[in-house]
Amino acid sequence: MATNKIISVVIAGAGESVRFQRQPKQFVLLDGKPLLYYSLKKLALLEGLSEIIVVTSDIEATKILLQEFNFLSKLKIKVVAGGKLRQHSVFNGFSNVSKSSELVLIHDVARPLFDLSDVKKCIEKAAIFESCVLGIPVIDTIKETKFHNDELIVSKTIDRKDLYIIQTPQVFTYDLLSGAYKMYKDSEDVFTDEAQMIEKSGKEVYLVIGTRRNIKITYTEDLEIASKMLKEDCNYSGISL
Amino acid sequence: MATNKIISVVIAGAGESVRFQRQPKQFVLLDGKPLLYYSLKKLALLEGLSEIIVVTSDIEATKILLQEFNFLSKLKIKVVAGGKLRQHSVFNGFSNVSKSSELVLIHDVARPLFDLSDVKKCIEKAAIFESCVLGIPVIDTIKETKFHNDELIVSKTIDRKDLYIIQTPQVFTYDLLSGAYKMYKDSEDVFTDEAQMIEKSGKEVYLVIGTRRNIKITYTEDLEIASKMLKEDCNYSGISL
Repeated sequence: MATNKIISVVIAGAGESVRFQRQPKQFVLLDGKPLLYYSLKKLALLEGLSEIIVVTSDIEATKILLQEFNFLSKLKIKVVAGGKLRQHSVFNGFSNVSKSSELVLIHDVARPLFDLSDVKKCIEKAAIFESCVLGIPVIDTIKETKFHNDELIVSKTIDRKDLYIIQTPQVFTYDLLSGAYKMYKDSEDVFTDEAQMIEKSGKEVYLVIGTRRNIKITYTEDLEIASKMLKEDCNYSGISL
Repeated sequence: MATNKIISVVIAGAGESVRFQRQPKQFVLLDGKPLLYYSLKKLALLEGLSEIIVVTSDIEATKILLQEFNFLSKLKIKVVAGGKLRQHSVFNGFSNVSKSSELVLIHDVARPLFDLSDVKKCIEKAAIFESCVLGIPVIDTIKETKFHNDELIVSKTIDRKDLYIIQTPQVFTYDLLSGAYKMYKDSEDVFTDEAQMIEKSGKEVYLVIGTRRNIKITYTEDLEIASKMLKEDCNYSGISL
């Protein structure tokens, strides 16, 4: 199971959400604790973890949070400022990763419910193949649309057979990510995840099938759903949150 | 608002779900009432509604359900047997639609939380443009995958900008649907919805943006989520469920 690789974690937490009163997501409370708490608590259990870089839009508030929940005494954590887009924020995080790191795990703070065993599979695969993301099969009918006389019309139904909804964590070797950033960090391309940048560089991205429970907290009602799942999560993972 | 069109409703409820102990979805209980109850209760409020065709895998049990909730005295309802695939079931339903019908609304019983005002918009649009479906924008990163040496790898990231997750209800003119069935009812093509058949026939399908709350009950945990949403649903729609 273990890979013996040195792992650095970058947590993207700089994004603000208009749906949460412009509060950065890492501070949004889930069962009374900030979202950042949950990701840190679980990722702290990873074998080989050497450091965690938290990217934030409010360095001071993040440091207070880390102090309050006593993370600083247990983990090596750097807090760095975010950028304009998500991809710039993650790049700022990556720029602070130690060069001795072998694998870089990138995670969105809005997903507190990832399954640690899925993440371990992702790490193992990235240790072999250089890159791996979590995803779940698309079960809905998806259609592509276009505008026609100001009306939205369907241009085609997408064959969903091979489609996956992509989640985080995503894991890459330091070298692979570093090489991709050399090519694209100043590019005008918008990447919705780092894997897309790796794909563009011509390298293969591997996929491990995750779970539907690893939802992204996007709307306020997602917090209630997450709260319910969290209770079950404690049961199966054995992590005392 | 009103279209003055004669509307027939076909409710696809013949599908069994292995996740619900092979119980047909229409009988699965949500807050103590079968899923079919919720769709009927709301669709009964549609202006212009002339009849409802319920497609089922258990005609007797469906008739008992309709009796128990006193639907038969208030609505014109036919109960018909389903087919092998969803598309065959809906065709069986459509075959029982009165020829005097102008619009046919097709709905999956697994979606009890549709918004009636969205459905009315869909009906209005179908009255003008012959076809309309409900959909919500894709907010996730979607990737296409392929197998490479027995490993799942990403072949590309799909541009999600113009992608919609399609829901039901879907509304078509009787004539449009009838024409498409003449072409495709014996085809080997698998259609995940009736709109796909219309698209294949070369006709345009219009789209009205719906709500995320209109979830499809697929997993048992969806029932708890639906139960929560249902409470809010009663508040805003003013329907006594």
